[in-house]
This record gives sequence, structure tokens and C-alpha cells, in this order.
Amino acid sequence: MAIDLPPPGSPREVEEGTAFTPRFGPDGLITALAVDAETGAPLMLAHMNRESLARTLETGEAWYWSRSRGELWHKGATSGQIQTVVEMRVDCDQDALLLRVRVGGDGGCCHTGRRSCFYRAVSVDPGTGTVRLVPAG
Amino acid sequence: MAIDLPPPGSPREVEEGTAFTPRFGPDGLITALAVDAETGAPLMLAHMNRESLARTLETGEAWYWSRSRGELWHKGATSGQIQTVVEMRVDCDQDALLLRVRVGGDGGCCHTGRRSCFYRAVSVDPGTGTVRLVPAG
Repeated sequence: MAIDLPPPGSPREVEEGTAFTPRFGPDGLITALAVDAETGAPLMLAHMNRESLARTLETGEAWYWSRSRGELWHKGATSGQIQTVVEMRVDCDQDALLLRVRVGGDGGCCHTGRRSCFYRAVSVDPGTGTVRLVPAG
Repeated sequence: MAIDLPPPGSPREVEEGTAFTPRFGPDGLITALAVDAETGAPLMLAHMNRESLARTLETGEAWYWSRSRGELWHKGATSGQIQTVVEMRVDCDQDALLLRVRVGGDGGCCHTGRRSCFYRAVSVDPGTGTVRLVPAG
């Protein structure tokens, strides 16, 4: 099947219409956050270009655009950590995506080996203003 | 207090260290997703520049950078929908933020009047490939 991703229309059509008209940035990318389909826990933030978004919709598995490698990235193709898309949501102005996914393989998402990329929280000392990272949660 | 946001060090320091070294993009911005602190429900995706991030850490309330207006944006300053930051998380390569927030005022986040910006899901007809937006959830 061929996925058609038309350009955005009027603000009202973008916000209230039923047409999916994703707004790619000047770099041709749209931001996508993957969260656990069951728990809603945030897993990773990545980017999609037009082709990776079309492939994601065609296959039901998450494809991203690797900015560091400059190539299409079928998440989990080598690690087995395939992300099956249970639901894809889009925001009001259609320039951000949220993917509710089930993760295959060992259930990991992060290249550091962790389940989620968001494993640290930012802690501020209110007296001194010193900022440091601590384990999240 | 003055918030210090030093530049990134080695990949290992960025991923495993305790120093908060946010990586701003070529446009000087870092992506930030706000989620409900209690339920984890995604609320909105926005961007921060160095100053809005520092103000967020200093005040405990979310400040963004409005790309459309080209100005600092104290979320809720006019609407009352102030976002009190319960926890700020950063991802592995420190180029994305996740804010767990409590929303003030009427509890809304989206400029369309909805609680969340992610109110629509992308639906694909597997036979025809036709894509349309439907209510999320």
C-alpha cells in the first residue's frame, strides 16, 4: 500500500480536521516520542523523515531516521528490540508524534542497555543552584 | 541563584556522569515533553533555549521558547495554566527533556482548549492505505 502524507492545510484543518498532514521541520524531520503502550512510561525520543514515517504506518513497526548515521533506522532490526506500534498520536499542530509501542526482544530501548533513555533526573540544590543528575523515579 | 549549564563532555560522561550538560541543537533549542506528574499522560511537546531551561530550573515552573512568537514563554502566565515541575528527566545523550508537571488553572495545556495536545490518533486502513485522524485513546 502507498501512504499519502499531504502538506498541511489551514490552521483549523490542521487542528480540528481528520487529515493527517504531518509538519516536517526545515531538516525534513518530525519529533517522535515512544512510550510503553501498557504503562505509558517514556522510552525514547527520536526523529522520523517522510520515508520512515510512511514505513512505520505501512508496517506497524517503528522506523526512525538516525541523525548520527544519516540513514533509515528500523529500530530493533539488529537487537531484536522491535517496536510494534499500538497507537500513533499526533499533536495539535501536527509537528510531534507520540508512539505507544510494545517492545520486542529483551524489552530494551536505550543504546546504553537500559529499558528507557530517561533514566536520570535533574536535581537542583535550592541554596547554591548546583545542578546534578540523579537516578530518575 | 545562577544556574550553570556546561557544554557536553565525552560520550561516557554524557551518558553515565552526574553532570547536566544539555545538548542544544543548531537552532539553540532542546526538545521538552511535558507529561502529567500523576498519570504520566503526555500533555505537550515544546522547546527550550538555554535561558528558558535555566529559568525553569530556577523557578520550578516550566518556561519554554515560543518558536512562532520568537520569545520566552512562561507557560500559563496569562491563562493560569502554570506547569509546576515535579521532576525533570533527561535522556541518554542529553538532547531531550521530559518534565513531569502539575498543571494549574483549569488543568489545560493545549491552545485548542483541551487538556492534552495529543488528542488524535493516526488510523490506517490496512487495505487501501488511507490515513485519517480519529479521537485518541
